[in-house]
Amino acid sequence: MLAEIITIGDEILIGQIIDSNSAWMAQQLNAAGIRVKQISSVSDNRKHILTAIKEASERADVILITGGLGPTKDDITKTTLAEYFKVGMKRDQETLDNVARIFARFNRPLLDVNIRQADVPENCEVLLNKNGTAPGMWFQENGKVYVSMPGVPHEMMYLMEDLVLPKLKASFNLPKIWHQTILTVGEGESFLAERIADIEDQLPPQIKLAYLPKLGTVRLRLSAYGDDEEKMQQELALQTKKLTERLGSTVAATEDIPLEKAILLLMAKNKQTLSLAESCTGGYIAHLFTSQPGASSVFVGGAVSYSYEMKEKMLGVNSDTLWETGAVSEETVREMVEGALRNFSSDYAIAVTGIAGPDGGTPEKPVGTVWIGVARKDKTIAKKYVFGNKRIQNIERTAITAMGDLLKLLREPIA
Amino acid sequence: MLAEIITIGDEILIGQIIDSNSAWMAQQLNAAGIRVKQISSVSDNRKHILTAIKEASERADVILITGGLGPTKDDITKTTLAEYFKVGMKRDQETLDNVARIFARFNRPLLDVNIRQADVPENCEVLLNKNGTAPGMWFQENGKVYVSMPGVPHEMMYLMEDLVLPKLKASFNLPKIWHQTILTVGEGESFLAERIADIEDQLPPQIKLAYLPKLGTVRLRLSAYGDDEEKMQQELALQTKKLTERLGSTVAATEDIPLEKAILLLMAKNKQTLSLAESCTGGYIAHLFTSQPGASSVFVGGAVSYSYEMKEKMLGVNSDTLWETGAVSEETVREMVEGALRNFSSDYAIAVTGIAGPDGGTPEKPVGTVWIGVARKDKTIAKKYVFGNKRIQNIERTAITAMGDLLKLLREPIA
Repeated sequence: MLAEIITIGDEILIGQIIDSNSAWMAQQLNAAGIRVKQISSVSDNRKHILTAIKEASERADVILITGGLGPTKDDITKTTLAEYFKVGMKRDQETLDNVARIFARFNRPLLDVNIRQADVPENCEVLLNKNGTAPGMWFQENGKVYVSMPGVPHEMMYLMEDLVLPKLKASFNLPKIWHQTILTVGEGESFLAERIADIEDQLPPQIKLAYLPKLGTVRLRLSAYGDDEEKMQQELALQTKKLTERLGSTVAATEDIPLEKAILLLMAKNKQTLSLAESCTGGYIAHLFTSQPGASSVFVGGAVSYSYEMKEKMLGVNSDTLWETGAVSEETVREMVEGALRNFSSDYAIAVTGIAGPDGGTPEKPVGTVWIGVARKDKTIAKKYVFGNKRIQNIERTAITAMGDLLKLLREPIA
Repeated sequence: MLAEIITIGDEILIGQIIDSNSAWMAQQLNAAGIRVKQISSVSDNRKHILTAIKEASERADVILITGGLGPTKDDITKTTLAEYFKVGMKRDQETLDNVARIFARFNRPLLDVNIRQADVPENCEVLLNKNGTAPGMWFQENGKVYVSMPGVPHEMMYLMEDLVLPKLKASFNLPKIWHQTILTVGEGESFLAERIADIEDQLPPQIKLAYLPKLGTVRLRLSAYGDDEEKMQQELALQTKKLTERLGSTVAATEDIPLEKAILLLMAKNKQTLSLAESCTGGYIAHLFTSQPGASSVFVGGAVSYSYEMKEKMLGVNSDTLWETGAVSEETVREMVEGALRNFSSDYAIAVTGIAGPDGGTPEKPVGTVWIGVARKDKTIAKKYVFGNKRIQNIERTAITAMGDLLKLLREPIA
């Protein structure tokens, strides 16, 4: 089963926005056993949209279209779809009620352009958009499915999860696939592959293993293809157990979540708290943790100590240590992480100090040199890393590595 | 002049990576007067790649292709291009020397697969990739240009900036366009449009104005089309002056930079320092500032004070204030921002405290309620905002708004 994604609108073509919708949709489709053949971004142009839909329909069974559903005259997706299917337009009462309800809630007058949001091609089945005024639309013709959705991410996501994916599963005889993700941190793809080579070789034929590497983490995704759900789930559980036992402390989670969430869940379960002392990451680690809902049950806060003075004042780092060993040194990172533990009264702390670049490097400490410290009452561990010469990558790499180091300490029995 | 972008590789189609390359390329092309007609992501499949290139060449004059140039057997872009142009392969000596140099630098043996990176279609002109082993390739056929580049962002960016764009400008009679961007913050697109309506109406015909809104900021982009560079630059400068005078303190910069960079530049020029006290943004504002190279000349550091205790300890917020007025209140944000100013000895400070969601809202203080404080020695300004109900958007919106508030204060004469 093949799908194509078409995004309509000039914002992507002029580079004003990055198309993150399509990646999300592709993930969802792949997880449901639908392979994405092509993703195309086209302009708000009638002929161009018609061509793109026709080309996609020649390659795929499902064509998912986003964008071009706003109330302005640029937005021509609906009328172009009517032209494609050679049908007229109808006014959909449920959509009109939805639009009226949304306008009433915000005390805004309902203008003609807004009423026209309820006009849809005659042959479509409306997918009610509870989060916005533009309706989703489902078309079925010659055994192919066409779906039109708004380009606003949360509206599209809601429609996909609640309506489109279930309808696709009901409409097509999709392969039944179950997934299990193992999140690992701190080891490269080839190293992991070597460690689990024999397990991978002995996987039963209905189980596939994929490596999905991303900046210091690798996701191992097991996919089970078959009809007997119970049997497939048992098989997945068995292989997951084998892999996690083999990979030991490299494993951060056995579900598809980011590393920061895995840490928050583990620490919340154990009623542990965390604080941070960030220098070269400049608040990025705090940002990762606090992007997760409910972070406050674990994360108490942190210091972004960019200057020497801040390292002394907020973390109690010794002035002599700074001036004698430098801000990027084992001694400093140890004092930083122990200072955070003490001053911020948390069970665990992370400290990082390094040279993110592009300036500030020296022959002894080139750009990319980073010291990471993790600590709890009975133990402090400090390690030196040398990453690359790109500032943003150094920041991201340091953050992931520091979380990996914390995870290892979390797993060690308390003395 | 029309271009199309084709990205090759399964990573985008399975949703593993988001295609940010294409947005960047589209920006560069648009700035050079080349309109992007379509962006397509296709799989590592010979027939599919051939079809995609053929379709693109029927619509556009320039076809930019990224990806599929690695050393593994999945990477078939080069041989497929040779098939498309009906030519054989040749070994390029300059590329081979480059590959050998890179392997020597890392003390790695040069394997057969690596040597084959120097094989390219016979009809191509090699664009030497100084940042990696995969060469860029330039093809010219029937008046159309085809360019193949690696998908690794910094390799592609370097090739585009240093080689591809200059060659495109030399090969085609491109419209001459000059741009001037005005970055505004704190006002919506329609409000700005109303304020400058008369200036916009009187723009000379060779000057176009575009509104590029994004999360609390709006970029006004003036584009001048013409042959006489000096005259066009004068016209741009004149219109920029009119617009910035009219828009006053809304204007953050007259170049195309992010708001945080505009603030850092302004403060660096005035030798001012900045500290932060972040609660609901959880380090995100610090992260924005510290993502900019050289941030340390202005930014001394900050507190991410998630808990009551951290607000008291790091910022000296009064325990009574917290318990009587709550963490999200005018009183608290004032004490936070003045505490930052005092404890971190900076000239300016920003403090934010709010309810990012999804939990923690009350009828009086719903999710999205945020207090923002900005301060310097002679003045503290605190304002309340009510944003939406999405955590990530609330964090981002708060950060941009707080920077906008700081900018206003930076512009006020010191008492």
